[in-house]
Amino acid sequence: MVGGGQLARMTSQAATGLGVGFRVLAGHATDSAAQVVAETRLGDYRSLADLSAFAAGCDVLTFDHEHVPAPHLRALEQDGIAVRPNAAALRFTQDKLAMRERLTGLGIACPRFTPVRTTAEAEAFADGNWPLVLKAVSGGYDGKGVWVCESATEAGRVLAHGIDLIAEEYVAFERELAVLAARSPHRQGAVYPVVQTIQRDGICREVIAPAPGLTAGRRAQAQALALRIARELGVTGLLAVEMFETPAGLLVNELAMRPHNTGHWTIEGARTSQFEQHLRAVLDLPLGSPQLAAPAAVMANVLGGDDEDVYDRYIHVMAADPAVKVHMYGKQVRSGRKIGHVTVLGEDVADLADRARRAASYLRWGKEDGQ
Amino acid sequence: MVGGGQLARMTSQAATGLGVGFRVLAGHATDSAAQVVAETRLGDYRSLADLSAFAAGCDVLTFDHEHVPAPHLRALEQDGIAVRPNAAALRFTQDKLAMRERLTGLGIACPRFTPVRTTAEAEAFADGNWPLVLKAVSGGYDGKGVWVCESATEAGRVLAHGIDLIAEEYVAFERELAVLAARSPHRQGAVYPVVQTIQRDGICREVIAPAPGLTAGRRAQAQALALRIARELGVTGLLAVEMFETPAGLLVNELAMRPHNTGHWTIEGARTSQFEQHLRAVLDLPLGSPQLAAPAAVMANVLGGDDEDVYDRYIHVMAADPAVKVHMYGKQVRSGRKIGHVTVLGEDVADLADRARRAASYLRWGKEDGQ
Repeated sequence: MVGGGQLARMTSQAATGLGVGFRVLAGHATDSAAQVVAETRLGDYRSLADLSAFAAGCDVLTFDHEHVPAPHLRALEQDGIAVRPNAAALRFTQDKLAMRERLTGLGIACPRFTPVRTTAEAEAFADGNWPLVLKAVSGGYDGKGVWVCESATEAGRVLAHGIDLIAEEYVAFERELAVLAARSPHRQGAVYPVVQTIQRDGICREVIAPAPGLTAGRRAQAQALALRIARELGVTGLLAVEMFETPAGLLVNELAMRPHNTGHWTIEGARTSQFEQHLRAVLDLPLGSPQLAAPAAVMANVLGGDDEDVYDRYIHVMAADPAVKVHMYGKQVRSGRKIGHVTVLGEDVADLADRARRAASYLRWGKEDGQ
Repeated sequence: MVGGGQLARMTSQAATGLGVGFRVLAGHATDSAAQVVAETRLGDYRSLADLSAFAAGCDVLTFDHEHVPAPHLRALEQDGIAVRPNAAALRFTQDKLAMRERLTGLGIACPRFTPVRTTAEAEAFADGNWPLVLKAVSGGYDGKGVWVCESATEAGRVLAHGIDLIAEEYVAFERELAVLAARSPHRQGAVYPVVQTIQRDGICREVIAPAPGLTAGRRAQAQALALRIARELGVTGLLAVEMFETPAGLLVNELAMRPHNTGHWTIEGARTSQFEQHLRAVLDLPLGSPQLAAPAAVMANVLGGDDEDVYDRYIHVMAADPAVKVHMYGKQVRSGRKIGHVTVLGEDVADLADRARRAASYLRWGKEDGQ
């Protein structure tokens, strides 16, 4: 797996369980995955030489992020490396304009969009309806690369960065949903229950599985959508589809082709964790059951606060709630950075959400929201 | 953790989740845990120098087996190392005579026993009631070090090995049960549901959690017994108590103070896996909830067959049952060796047992029992 972050770290736990060989290409020995994976190789994912050397010892190459340059992916494929998902599929996670054009070409509802280069173009697209959203065509994550602009002046400031941008309508959604699907080279597909995600400042804060109060029709529609996108885009491995639920229906917001934050709940909450599922898919093993392991699960991200010593707080969190599952990534604490997550399983979503929030907040040392 | 076996391997998965530093002292780089743990140190657990060098970088020293020489454990303690469980407790897993004397001294029912050195002593103990059981006082595991002797001649052959032995009555049990408890330096205790274990040739083959048809009284008695032994013997970490259920009540058969084969089902079947629980206990963190995560779980061990390529059979096992959880230890396949396990969760124990057996048998390539 290319990438040394927490997704590779959690994938390594699944690989250890399955007894399959697992290597990571990490930038630094202190990276989240590099700390724990025996077969860590240090190198730069932006270097084709490093990628090739890493791939030489692997049956299959996969990724914990979407930032490997597309020409490198194509070069690796030409060298006969099994790149999964492949360069053609990954393109739609690396280029938001290509993703929007492809999805709308398939008749899949997305927010209205257009590429923009000038303030005049942004103004024309807005047509008096502010705010609008500007997104970097490539390289964004966790709210970075996304700007909600209230005026032409604000849009002009973003455009002044000189990066490739698309403008999108600002969607007044009812809530955000996400669906995780998996697809294997054998073309087997599997889809997890639809979840509700709660974002703040562009960062996922909580995930509720399954999404409360979703109609059967809407649920089936969301799952079918994820499976269809996986098929049409030729995805191998996981596909996470983030959606807006609006009065008019579902709009696809973002895609990712890797284990995804909105699927962390599956470690305990589903029969097959997303990490195991990704491995099964890219190794072309039969996919695991995505069914729920409990009536409901709530996952809350732990963001870095002002205090370095997260470990010191374990005793309180664990004593207060012996059933909360704590996952920490070994990452240096920086304010607002995702450093871990907690999951609580049970029946009553309100109770689970309360417990998950308390635990996550405590691990952040009460600094959340400036308290 | 001292030891590079599958118990250390699975404990490493829990350590990765908790985000606590984890090192193993393994004999060889190919050991089950050494294959996956970044912080592997190679060394010999029989060497005090190797143990001391390893312990120097650790806050707490714990074990995936009971074979570290007792004088070394005491020497490490005298050097101020936090050895958990400590030498005084571990003695009762290293010396079966000491264990039997201590438990019977506490009034805890065990099989009748006596140390034996000569055939005449064995005959006198048997008093005409054959078979009797001879057990090596130290060093046994998985049926090794245990001999069921049908006659004085057979006993004489075992005694001729010249090792320290105890004789025990052969217990005509109804079934075998096991209970896993945890205890922390803060003296917090937690106990898992009582399980039924099915052994063949001295090797645990299946575990059913919870033990079917156990009366509430018997269940409470077994759990109280495990907690009491943990307390009386001053255990820190996990204590596995294997018991015989007989018409006259429960008899304690064996003790272990580490993650145990009879607790592998907890990875998916309990809110807190035994591996996480052991880490929490030895690190003096609050213990996790031992409650069931499903109505029932069945675990079946995968034993080595004649075919090296276990991985080749994954596709069949996973396609046949997408909800079976496969755990393989990366161990070289040798006939009869534990190389992995499978767990199935659900409601109907007969169905779960059937599915677990099929999967385990398939992974052994149908060679089970000479078929």
